[in-house]
Amino acid sequence: MTRNGDARDADDLKTPRTTVRRKPDRGSHDFETIAAILDEALICHIAFETDGQPYAIPTIYGRDGQTLYIHGSPASRMLRTLAEGIPMCLTVTLVDGILLARSVFHHSMNYRSVVVLGTALRVDEQAEKLHALEVITSHLVPGRWRDARVPSERELKASLVLRMAVDEASAKVRPGGVSDEAEDMDLPVWAGRLPLSIAVGEPETDPAVAAEVAVPPYVRDYTRP
Amino acid sequence: MTRNGDARDADDLKTPRTTVRRKPDRGSHDFETIAAILDEALICHIAFETDGQPYAIPTIYGRDGQTLYIHGSPASRMLRTLAEGIPMCLTVTLVDGILLARSVFHHSMNYRSVVVLGTALRVDEQAEKLHALEVITSHLVPGRWRDARVPSERELKASLVLRMAVDEASAKVRPGGVSDEAEDMDLPVWAGRLPLSIAVGEPETDPAVAAEVAVPPYVRDYTRP
Repeated sequence: MTRNGDARDADDLKTPRTTVRRKPDRGSHDFETIAAILDEALICHIAFETDGQPYAIPTIYGRDGQTLYIHGSPASRMLRTLAEGIPMCLTVTLVDGILLARSVFHHSMNYRSVVVLGTALRVDEQAEKLHALEVITSHLVPGRWRDARVPSERELKASLVLRMAVDEASAKVRPGGVSDEAEDMDLPVWAGRLPLSIAVGEPETDPAVAAEVAVPPYVRDYTRP
Repeated sequence: MTRNGDARDADDLKTPRTTVRRKPDRGSHDFETIAAILDEALICHIAFETDGQPYAIPTIYGRDGQTLYIHGSPASRMLRTLAEGIPMCLTVTLVDGILLARSVFHHSMNYRSVVVLGTALRVDEQAEKLHALEVITSHLVPGRWRDARVPSERELKASLVLRMAVDEASAKVRPGGVSDEAEDMDLPVWAGRLPLSIAVGEPETDPAVAAEVAVPPYVRDYTRP
């Protein structure tokens, strides 16, 4: 079972394939930067190819040190295909804002993204499988694992869990404001930044929940991150 | 130039590769459904393979009828690779909520996603290129195109624009609330839905903008969709 801490040589994550070539000043192979983005994002998109066709499929995930876990039904085509050990890419993207420049050409986004390359391994050992489901659940809603009914043996059998190492990865981060051509600076055009984030609405209690069961604090105060 | 309307035979979008096999009740090949999700999402993730490695890369896009446009620098590895006409997948995902069931096993998400399969074509004709940039800009910030300085000939040359047809696609939509096992219904565990959406913050005006230039209405009242 992989339960490593976060400490590692950041340069290990950099390979020719994860070197950020375009705008390298926006790229990073620092593990702390990568881990923070992976922890803040809610979902990832996984790229894989089958029968000559690439797919990008959204799913939830969780991180424990240098290990990422994904899960789903044993009937999932994506999970069954990935379990064969084919090359894959797990990408998360946080959209932090829209940058409205004076010229259309310089419009841009504030974003933070991470690309992890590698292969997935099927998790079969019961204890790690349960651990993986805890990691994924706690990524989605911290605090939930100790409240909800944990998976039964039958439910564990009905879950396909994969793990992927974060050992070839890069982050790309575009902070800051607009950047315009010098000759456009005096145009009478509004320019600036429109911040975007995830809004969490009021929890909607399932009608069948008993009146004495209160909304738990981790739901009431839920935020990302 | 492709400037078709939205009317088409929805079944055309369904192929063996875009048939939703897992939970088919959540799948749709209806063009209106697909178009609405494509219009509401801000960014997409594009899957493609190069040198035996798949990648999922985030980017902005725009839709005009059955045509999707993406753009970027002519130096972009993704755009140059896609321009070769290799198989690709363009995916958008809207995360609408977290479903907290009484059991960990039945935790789920409210989401709406679209997967478009196909290949991209390079747009070289100047008028369509400009049109594509207008479509992408108007997708990002409706109303912006008529305000900002439009691309110069030099900037058009410095933009690589691709188009992709929406002719093989599927949507997957998971609305509704939690679903639990009958024997879990009386557990003293809170269950329900936590709605998520995109929050738009206060516009941050670039310090160099003249005092008499007001925040435009399309920025002040910006929402997704």
